[in-house]
This record gives sequence, structure tokens and C-alpha cells, in this order.
Amino acid sequence: MSTSEDVGSAKGASVRIEERLARVGIAYVTEPGDPAVSKAVADFGAEAIWEGMLQWSGQRGLKAREYRPEAVLEGGLRQGLRYLVPGDDEWPRRLTDLANVVFRGFGGEPLGLWVKGSARLGELADFSVGMVGSRSCTSYGERQALELAHHVSDSGVSVISGGAFGIDAAAHRGAMSARTPTVAVLANGLDEYYPAGNAGLFERICEEGLLVSELAPGEHPTRVRFLIRNRLIAALSIGTLVVEGAARSGTQNTMNWASELGRVSMAVPGPVSSVFSYTPHELIRSGQAVLVTHGSDILELIAPGAPEPVRPEPARRRTDGLEPAALAVYEAIPAKGSRTVGELSAKLGFSVPKLLSCLGKLEEGQLVVKNPRGAWQLC
Amino acid sequence: MSTSEDVGSAKGASVRIEERLARVGIAYVTEPGDPAVSKAVADFGAEAIWEGMLQWSGQRGLKAREYRPEAVLEGGLRQGLRYLVPGDDEWPRRLTDLANVVFRGFGGEPLGLWVKGSARLGELADFSVGMVGSRSCTSYGERQALELAHHVSDSGVSVISGGAFGIDAAAHRGAMSARTPTVAVLANGLDEYYPAGNAGLFERICEEGLLVSELAPGEHPTRVRFLIRNRLIAALSIGTLVVEGAARSGTQNTMNWASELGRVSMAVPGPVSSVFSYTPHELIRSGQAVLVTHGSDILELIAPGAPEPVRPEPARRRTDGLEPAALAVYEAIPAKGSRTVGELSAKLGFSVPKLLSCLGKLEEGQLVVKNPRGAWQLC
Repeated sequence: MSTSEDVGSAKGASVRIEERLARVGIAYVTEPGDPAVSKAVADFGAEAIWEGMLQWSGQRGLKAREYRPEAVLEGGLRQGLRYLVPGDDEWPRRLTDLANVVFRGFGGEPLGLWVKGSARLGELADFSVGMVGSRSCTSYGERQALELAHHVSDSGVSVISGGAFGIDAAAHRGAMSARTPTVAVLANGLDEYYPAGNAGLFERICEEGLLVSELAPGEHPTRVRFLIRNRLIAALSIGTLVVEGAARSGTQNTMNWASELGRVSMAVPGPVSSVFSYTPHELIRSGQAVLVTHGSDILELIAPGAPEPVRPEPARRRTDGLEPAALAVYEAIPAKGSRTVGELSAKLGFSVPKLLSCLGKLEEGQLVVKNPRGAWQLC
Repeated sequence: MSTSEDVGSAKGASVRIEERLARVGIAYVTEPGDPAVSKAVADFGAEAIWEGMLQWSGQRGLKAREYRPEAVLEGGLRQGLRYLVPGDDEWPRRLTDLANVVFRGFGGEPLGLWVKGSARLGELADFSVGMVGSRSCTSYGERQALELAHHVSDSGVSVISGGAFGIDAAAHRGAMSARTPTVAVLANGLDEYYPAGNAGLFERICEEGLLVSELAPGEHPTRVRFLIRNRLIAALSIGTLVVEGAARSGTQNTMNWASELGRVSMAVPGPVSSVFSYTPHELIRSGQAVLVTHGSDILELIAPGAPEPVRPEPARRRTDGLEPAALAVYEAIPAKGSRTVGELSAKLGFSVPKLLSCLGKLEEGQLVVKNPRGAWQLC
């Protein structure tokens, strides 16, 4: 079906097929997010490490020797999956930041990424925002995720999220209702849709955007794999936004990754009476995240060079900018009825010249008018 | 009914009656919050300034000469009002900070304060928090004001607020449902209750706490007087909290006073979909206010020496603190069913000694247990 040179590779890639196969093999016998593995591969090269693993004695060596990376790549290709590795044109440049970050024992640049969809990962990631939050979010949180994702997508920013119910799904839906494709980073092999209830969503995502996973086809999600996956959402995007998250949630973990990586962290506040406001509020209070209420806030933070945000300005009062004396005169005239200069002078203790000067300014600003009887009333 | 020496004065005061009467007079012919008046009084003494005002020519001099400060003080006393001035034991020491702050043309330490109620203002203000927010608040905001005010009052902190419907009233009610009296600072003479709908509330407040105003009996509220009043709420308290505030609200003005005075500013977040969240969110985003979600947050900020706050801690997961290898083993055992050492070793690629070490740690933490068939299952 294809020569070995382009099995599972990205268009225009200059990576040796031996290197790609070695990475598939190493990923099989190790767990993702092990910084020691990433470092060994960076230091000695994937091919040398894989060669070493094939020499292992015992069960682990047997496991390595029984594995057929080429068959896995070809199987993936038949399912519409490609396997990206560092050096591919499509490899997102921001992922290299993971090489130097270890958080709670996990970290490292991924050995490779399985990708499904018609977009190019590097391009979508270049100008992107991570959006995370609770699976069991409230309708308030869902609404915010939809609106904010729609806004940034409409401005050409891709949304990167997971594949869970709740905020993840709302972020994808909101973004897909505008013009920029989204990226779903999953904690399982892309041959399966997890959760199955989001199968329709995943199919829509990879029509224009991408499904991405560090895990090979056939691999299942575990809690640790979700935590490991979170580092990819944080690393791929310019900044990450949390919409809702209960205490000690996976959301907090993603935001920790964003901080460790020096990414912009953002949080949407909510009612303090909701347990799902816990993580956003803690992040804002501690200064770890910036409070965000509108899509333009996000654009301002992740794209400072972009055109001015269109935050709606509060209406100005007509009396704004009045000097105190003129304001005092304005206040001294009742909403209904009128006041003569004499009455105003007596009430305020202002001299008549001062009063007339104030009334002149108010008249100029169309705030007061003299009625036919010579008394002043509000416009 | 009394000698001139104690007319309207506070118990234990050493202030001359001439000084007190002069301040009542000056307050009558000027507007409160005029920093030039406060400065002149500070520089030359109230008696000299009042003497000068009595010499004024024209309408203003007439107004001064027709006024009878002693009658006003006595009239106030008959209505249960006393007039405090700087130098009185009860004068709140924090008000002197106003002497050096001018904001939008207004400022200055008040010439005096009319007070109604059985508490002593200096004592209540010493350990107090300002609480402000929208008149037309939401039920969410009202609930937060009630709960937070109750919490701080229960800890011995007095709540200082205005007398409006909405957040002001909720703050007083919440605080009065606990043990510390409250202070309502009003923008009108204390002979009248404004708004009249809060008359019952005002009567309850001055049974144990205090009504306070810079304005003499007979004076009416204006918008400017509300803004001037706001500086007193900010100046009297250690810190001020905003619960809800729309854009360009008086609430924002109070928080500006708190900032100008170097007081702690605090804000309760809310749904971003509510217009009443505008002011709190802007203050938090800009770093002007600290995000607050619980009464203990307020105590922590205004009373750093006080006992540790009782913020509810999120429940810890039983797997918190496990090293990655042990966590991987834990995750590899299904919720239902069991796994043998051989199965786990094959799945994880761990050597048997490493695996047994992990299982030992998990067993110690009562996370896993060996069943009678020798396989491991979750506890």
C-alpha cells in the first residue's frame, strides 16, 4: 500500500522511518509522560534506545521483541491516523518546551503524536487557546464555554481541549459554530471514541480539525493518562482558560502545567455558591490566573499585537467630567420643577457670578435650560 | 436642659464647646467633602474660620449670622443625636487619613459626625469592614452579603455600610443576625430615615449599633452627598468589600476611596453573565481588589494576626502523595476484579521486585489488599 518511507509520516517530513518506528516501539513499552524516557531519547536518539530495549532480558525484552511498530503504523494509516514525531513539518514547535519541565514526576516532550483529521497540527496550534473545565459542569459554565470559544474561534484562534462531556464538549461546539477548527487531545488510542457518547462530536471535530493522542491505537484511558494528557493541552496552546472546576480537579492539574510551562493562565469567575467556581477563584485569588469575562479579554492576553478588543464600554453619564461646583448646581435643581438663580444662590451659598458661570456650563452641555419664567430646570 | 459645656458632646470629651459650635456652623454654610474647608479648619482652627464666616458680606454672611449652632446641637440632642468632632474620645482615629486625600476634587476629614445609637463609634470602627454594593442587587448578591456579614460579625468585626436597599441592607441584616453591632453611614440628616422603607432597619441598627452622618438634621441626600459619604465608609473601616456593582456605580466610587486611602479592597465574584458582576470583576482583574469567596478570606485580609481562618479544605484523595510508579500500579488494578503480580508486571513492564515494592506501599496505605487467591484488588 505504500513504501516504508512514508508509512504514517506527515507530508514533507524528513524524519527517517527507522526513527519513527523506534518511537512507536518505545512508546509501547513505556508509559507516556516519563521524563527519563524523553531525556534518554533526546540524548541518545530513538533508534539507539529502541535497539537497547530489544536487548532487554526477561518479560520486558520479550514484550519489545514481540511488538511490530511498522504493522502498528500501517494499521493506523488504514484507520486514517498518522504518527507525527519531532522533526516533522507539522510538529508543533511549542511542544519542545516540555523537554525541561517535570511536574509531580511527569513531563517530557512526547515521543510522537497520533493525529486524525484534515488540518495540520502545527498550524492550528500556532494561534490557539486551551480551554478546560469540569465534565459535570453547570449550565452557566457550559454557556460561558460556548460563548468564549465561539468568540476566539471567530477571531481565528483555535480552541484546544479534551474530549470529555461538559466544558470540553461545549468549547468544541462553541468554536465549531464559528470559523476556526478545533483540536481535541485525548488520553486513549484514536481507534476508539471515549467517551462513546461524544462519538458524533469527535467525528465533527476531525472533519475540519484534529483528534490528537500520545497513545497508540488500542490503548485505553486511565486517570494517570488523563493527567499526562493535560500537559499537552497546556503545552500546545499560547494560554489556557479554565471555565469551571471543582476542588482537586483535573482542571487544576492542567492549569498547573500551564504555569510550569510559563503559559498564560486565565479563569472565568462564577457564583461563589457553586462548587465548580472553586478552581477558577483559587487561581485568580492566588494570582496564578487572570480573570476573564469576555472573549476579547482572551484575545488581549494571548495576542497582544491583535486589533483592539471590542469590550463593550459602559454608558457614560451626562454629568461625567463636570467640575464639582457645576455638579453641585446640577444636583440642586430638582428632577421636576425649577429653581431661580436667587434660590440656587441661597441654597448653595454661591455668589451670583459663580452660579451663572456654572449654569452656563450646564446649559452648554444641554443639562439645564432656562424656562420662560427665567427659572432653571433640568433638560 | 444642660449646660453649654456638654451640649451634644461625647462623654469624656475635652473639646471646647466653642469649637464644636463653630464646626456645626461651618458645616452649615459649606458642603461636606470640600478639602479646602477641612484644610482651613486644620490650619487656622474652627473658631477662627467660623468667626471669619460670620463677617462675610452678602447673602453668605447673612446665612451664617442667621444660623444658631447651639440650637441645632440642642435640637439634635432632643432627637437622640450627638455631634462628634476630632478630639472626642469616640472620634475614629482612622478618619485622620482623609486629611491628605483628595479624589476628584473631594476629600478632607469631616468637620464632625452626627451619631445616633448606643455604641461608641471609635470602638466599632476600630475592627471593622466596609461592605458596599448595588441597591438593585440580585438574590445571589443579597445572599452573599448576608452570609459574609454574618461571618465577620460572628468573629467580632463590625460591618460598616450605607442605608440603601439591596446589598447595604443585606449586610446590616446579616451582621445583626450575629453578635457585632453595625454602623450605617448616611447621606442625610439623622432626623429623617432615607429611604423610608428602611426605617425599621435603621431603628434596629441604632438599638445596638450606630447611625452616622456628616450632615446636620434637616439636610437631604443628593447624588454628590452620596459620593462624599462613600469616603467615610472607606475611611472608617480597615478594608472595604464590594459584593455586586454595575458599571459606573457608586460602589466603584467607594472602592476608589478605599484605594486612595490605602485600605484593603476586596470583591466577591459572581456570574459573568450578570451586569452586577461588572465592578467586582474589573477590580479583581486590575489587581485593585482581592477576590474573596468566604468570610474567613475577609478576616485573613483585615486581621492578619487573628486565629487561622476556617476555610473548608477540599477532601483529599486517598492516592494523593503516591509516587508515580505506585500510582501506575494502583491505576492498573480494575475497580472490580483483581490482578496477579504476573499480570501487573506484564501490563506495566515493571520488574517483580519493583512491583512488590509498589504493592507494599499501596497495602500500607490501605489502598489495595491481597485476596485469598493471592491476587491484588482495590480496598
